[in-house]
Amino acid sequence: MSTTKVAIVGASGYGARELFRLLLKHPGVQVAAASSRQDESPRVDELHPSLAGRLDLRCEPFDPAAIASKAEIAFLALPHTASMAATPALLENGVRVIDLSADYRLRDPAVYADWYGHVHTDAPRLGEAVYGLPELYRKRIPPARLIANPGCYTSTSILALAPLLAEKLIEPRGIIIDAKSGVSGAGRSPRLDYHFPECNESLAAYGVGRHRHTPEIEQILSDVSGREVEVIFTPHLVPMDRGIFATIYAQPTRSVSEADLLAICRTYYAAEPFVRVRDRIPATKDSAFTNFFDMTLRLVRGKVLVLAALDNLIKGAAGVAVQNLNLMLGLDETTALL
Amino acid sequence: MSTTKVAIVGASGYGARELFRLLLKHPGVQVAAASSRQDESPRVDELHPSLAGRLDLRCEPFDPAAIASKAEIAFLALPHTASMAATPALLENGVRVIDLSADYRLRDPAVYADWYGHVHTDAPRLGEAVYGLPELYRKRIPPARLIANPGCYTSTSILALAPLLAEKLIEPRGIIIDAKSGVSGAGRSPRLDYHFPECNESLAAYGVGRHRHTPEIEQILSDVSGREVEVIFTPHLVPMDRGIFATIYAQPTRSVSEADLLAICRTYYAAEPFVRVRDRIPATKDSAFTNFFDMTLRLVRGKVLVLAALDNLIKGAAGVAVQNLNLMLGLDETTALL
Amino acid sequence: MSTTKVAIVGASGYGARELFRLLLKHPGVQVAAASSRQDESPRVDELHPSLAGRLDLRCEPFDPAAIASKAEIAFLALPHTASMAATPALLENGVRVIDLSADYRLRDPAVYADWYGHVHTDAPRLGEAVYGLPELYRKRIPPARLIANPGCYTSTSILALAPLLAEKLIEPRGIIIDAKSGVSGAGRSPRLDYHFPECNESLAAYGVGRHRHTPEIEQILSDVSGREVEVIFTPHLVPMDRGIFATIYAQPTRSVSEADLLAICRTYYAAEPFVRVRDRIPATKDSAFTNFFDMTLRLVRGKVLVLAALDNLIKGAAGVAVQNLNLMLGLDETTALL
Amino acid sequence: MSTTKVAIVGASGYGARELFRLLLKHPGVQVAAASSRQDESPRVDELHPSLAGRLDLRCEPFDPAAIASKAEIAFLALPHTASMAATPALLENGVRVIDLSADYRLRDPAVYADWYGHVHTDAPRLGEAVYGLPELYRKRIPPARLIANPGCYTSTSILALAPLLAEKLIEPRGIIIDAKSGVSGAGRSPRLDYHFPECNESLAAYGVGRHRHTPEIEQILSDVSGREVEVIFTPHLVPMDRGIFATIYAQPTRSVSEADLLAICRTYYAAEPFVRVRDRIPATKDSAFTNFFDMTLRLVRGKVLVLAALDNLIKGAAGVAVQNLNLMLGLDETTALL
Repeated sequence: MSTTKVAIVGASGYGARELFRLLLKHPGVQVAAASSRQDESPRVDELHPSLAGRLDLRCEPFDPAAIASKAEIAFLALPHTASMAATPALLENGVRVIDLSADYRLRDPAVYADWYGHVHTDAPRLGEAVYGLPELYRKRIPPARLIANPGCYTSTSILALAPLLAEKLIEPRGIIIDAKSGVSGAGRSPRLDYHFPECNESLAAYGVGRHRHTPEIEQILSDVSGREVEVIFTPHLVPMDRGIFATIYAQPTRSVSEADLLAICRTYYAAEPFVRVRDRIPATKDSAFTNFFDMTLRLVRGKVLVLAALDNLIKGAAGVAVQNLNLMLGLDETTALL
Repeated sequence: MSTTKVAIVGASGYGARELFRLLLKHPGVQVAAASSRQDESPRVDELHPSLAGRLDLRCEPFDPAAIASKAEIAFLALPHTASMAATPALLENGVRVIDLSADYRLRDPAVYADWYGHVHTDAPRLGEAVYGLPELYRKRIPPARLIANPGCYTSTSILALAPLLAEKLIEPRGIIIDAKSGVSGAGRSPRLDYHFPECNESLAAYGVGRHRHTPEIEQILSDVSGREVEVIFTPHLVPMDRGIFATIYAQPTRSVSEADLLAICRTYYAAEPFVRVRDRIPATKDSAFTNFFDMTLRLVRGKVLVLAALDNLIKGAAGVAVQNLNLMLGLDETTALL
Repeated sequence: MSTTKVAIVGASGYGARELFRLLLKHPGVQVAAASSRQDESPRVDELHPSLAGRLDLRCEPFDPAAIASKAEIAFLALPHTASMAATPALLENGVRVIDLSADYRLRDPAVYADWYGHVHTDAPRLGEAVYGLPELYRKRIPPARLIANPGCYTSTSILALAPLLAEKLIEPRGIIIDAKSGVSGAGRSPRLDYHFPECNESLAAYGVGRHRHTPEIEQILSDVSGREVEVIFTPHLVPMDRGIFATIYAQPTRSVSEADLLAICRTYYAAEPFVRVRDRIPATKDSAFTNFFDMTLRLVRGKVLVLAALDNLIKGAAGVAVQNLNLMLGLDETTALL
Repeated sequence: MSTTKVAIVGASGYGARELFRLLLKHPGVQVAAASSRQDESPRVDELHPSLAGRLDLRCEPFDPAAIASKAEIAFLALPHTASMAATPALLENGVRVIDLSADYRLRDPAVYADWYGHVHTDAPRLGEAVYGLPELYRKRIPPARLIANPGCYTSTSILALAPLLAEKLIEPRGIIIDAKSGVSGAGRSPRLDYHFPECNESLAAYGVGRHRHTPEIEQILSDVSGREVEVIFTPHLVPMDRGIFATIYAQPTRSVSEADLLAICRTYYAAEPFVRVRDRIPATKDSAFTNFFDMTLRLVRGKVLVLAALDNLIKGAAGVAVQNLNLMLGLDETTALL
């Protein structure tokens, strides 16, 4: 296997750390450059002590031309707005981009402005970006120059609902997604809400009715179903490091048994290496530290309940990014991920 | 204040431990007897090391006459079925009973048999027992001889929904209660599901569609609303010691603003010492180790979301039991609870 | 009981929150003023959501004269240096001070400068301050105008070692104190080290050989033993909210049995309402949310091991502060603490 | 790479689960058989839901001949005593054994009887077994037929102390090892001590002076130093899944700087792929889910403090077992471990 050189832009967060960790296992990839907005150009293993002794790489200030001279593909693990500032120059320098931020996920700049509260500064590229969820858009990924890597709540919700919406087995409106996430989903910047003695031994909902993954879920699921999907999305913060659990309530369009619904989901995902449609209710721990998405469903008093889980940092971020990379490079999609 | 002697039957679990802890602060109560099914008649502070040095009391085998000679009121912190075996003899010996189990909560023995899988052996008393939720049944509690102390998920759900159902502001059917509980709610008996390395760093739903608090919630809320209430109740296990958070989705019956709904809830609970209707979303930690029930609500895309929390061991079990005790004794309802 | 008015200066941290919580249970005290360095003069229950509905008090900028007009006693829950800036004016205005910071704990300003890295700006008062550990200095506390409330690691270590040092049963030098603390001990200011996904599921030593509680432990234990005590003190951060556990290794001065050593400790603390010398090894959870100090000891291969635990926020901070307050006011020492 | 078939005997615990997980990544190994003492011959992914979809293997009752027909090497992840009952028949059937229990770690059957409380039933093989710590016994491992895989506390302690003892830089007696472990170290059998609401949010020492890893540590370190080593070993239970941290206090034999000591350790471990001698104090999280052993040291008031960490389930159990397997098969020692 020849070696592809990649860069990680925004090297200090958890998404970046997981990328480093996964790519160190990848036989066909070398992380040749890393950048961070921190002044002192830290070594990667100073930023991430768990990587001590694993790689000899120092962060540099972000420089698109320098990256282009060292890498074919750049992972952007930046906050939103920082990604749309960095992406154009990378693309213009011939670097393909896998963007882990939300900046290129929404197609409509008006929707972006509405939910993110500011104008999108690279709106023309919103149409060009490929939404990097291989289970739904696998064919578009290999040639893509700009991948919008999905959000973590988003992937959980979309993968859980896609089979039933694609088969028109549930109503596309009024879907309730009650989602629970570990704290790493909030990023690595210290803030009182994520200070250990505040969120440990506590659970609460947040961002009720206004979490930014809502329009992303709706956009993709509308694609899948061919009809306008509307969801109520309620995230909760859970005192654990990683993992998302989604409990989803939908209205069936017709009478169908639990067994049939499960069989339909199994058929829908039959060829997927990272989707496990299971009988038993998954726990987040079952998929923690893996690229698996786990789901099952139940019929309760006339509603379909879909119960789904994944690791927010892997299948919800860095893992699916590597899955996208593998597809872009024509490699086995599971490389470095099993 | 004169001293009332009480007994704790079933002294080894978390409900009992919290009762001991609260009653040690109670100026008008003395725990004069404790019983446990364990053979060796352990001291209470052997069962509960946190009570070391706090009380000099040894458990005895359960003996209704002996309890009657020592105590006016018995708290039953027993598993279901054990309570209905112990209660008749206590009542016949003149001991008033506050039963923390589920045995006397449901009025209809057929519903009990349906959800608990066996016949109720003391069915005639189901009609006599008073449901011990002071916010709804305060007037019936002082003279009661048998209190059915509410379940933890139940109290959270009922208190969250009572104002809106009482005022007919939401539809009584199709209510979704997505509830999350700390692990102490599962009791103190070791089991693989609650073994630390299994449930730590993990979250999952369980008992989907068949949790036994469902009929209890429906019975009381049907009372409150005067119509038949039907809920979908989904419990989840959360890696924390204590606390329940309920995220509830209901259909408004008419157009009403969030502010008005909050005002209606505040009015409904205006005189309640342990209900806090708040603007901000409560975290379980806000009410942990207290007898408070916290709630707020939001309107999202045409649905009412009620967000509620309490401490499952206190307001959800031992605290409300002491609140009931205070009412039964004619004391200030908040004694030992603030 | 008449009501004494007190102030809490530095209302936003965990020490202050615990003070509010304890004092709300105190029948003889009213918190009449609170100050915070935050600009917006927040309400206390905005700073501490768990106190919602419990008190109607707004923070004000620190003003010694205003405090003096409202309160007899001020608790200072400030970072070190801030306390020594605030204390002189309070005392001059006739307010007695219970300082929870480290500023007045060390008697020798040179030692302070050495460990804290700057000059003490109120050095003359170092001699006047009374070290507020009632088990050792109970008689000096009632008349004190300035109480230096002990550190949390410090109290654990001192109470664990005092009986053996006082009775000259262990060598005063070469004592190893391996201490483990919950994260609330690090305060409420967000920092990467205490960001949930960093310190959760992790344990490490920190401040090895240079933690500032070292000279405080040595000063007080030298007092107790009449000889110069030297310790090696190693703190560790543990993924839990609260609790300190100290594992202490000392060299016996002569042959004595474990039973005799325990008996000597029990005698030493016989009259203490908050010290529990136990047979079994205490867990931090046994004393969590209480003002108890738990200890036991073992003889292992010629060393004495003392195993001790307390709640860092209560017996290690706010609880002992209230204990000191009770002594200063001539009240039962356990008021609001059991 | 050709494929070696292996068996896992005792498939239900955490050590076994980690073996499955690691071996699924191993290009040269296939798990061809698994056994469990459970009656119902469960599938491996029923025992370990995280392995859903990963392997199609059902446990069978233990049968040495059947294992010999399917596998060349057997990992024994059994409780002690069960291993010494199973090992002889496996060896006699020509199966090489990597035993993760304590049964073959101690050379002297009298020491075994003393610490484990019963007679060793396969004492003659104690001399034959190779202690499977590659950093110390690498040359003996390739030809071994019976590997005694080290204990988790043991490896942490031994690797931390070996360089200093080998170089005679510390006194071999009076070494204090204060060790802290995550709860998975206690195994997967539910017990009150490991019930989530008991050990969560709590820390305590246990087994003080009588933990069975003590003689194992002493035996190997006596080997290393050529003198009789004596330690005081104090384990603590920490509310986290995995990780061991050891804080070790030793007396230097002569004056030497911290930098020199670190340099000596780095030289000692220069060729080791899984030892990281670091400047900064390691956290258990740095090596969690890896096969790395991390250490550093400090000089404090005349004592050497060694601070060391590893993942108890990987470098402390299943990871080192795979490392041993790689050596036994003549493969790159890091296969499946990076």
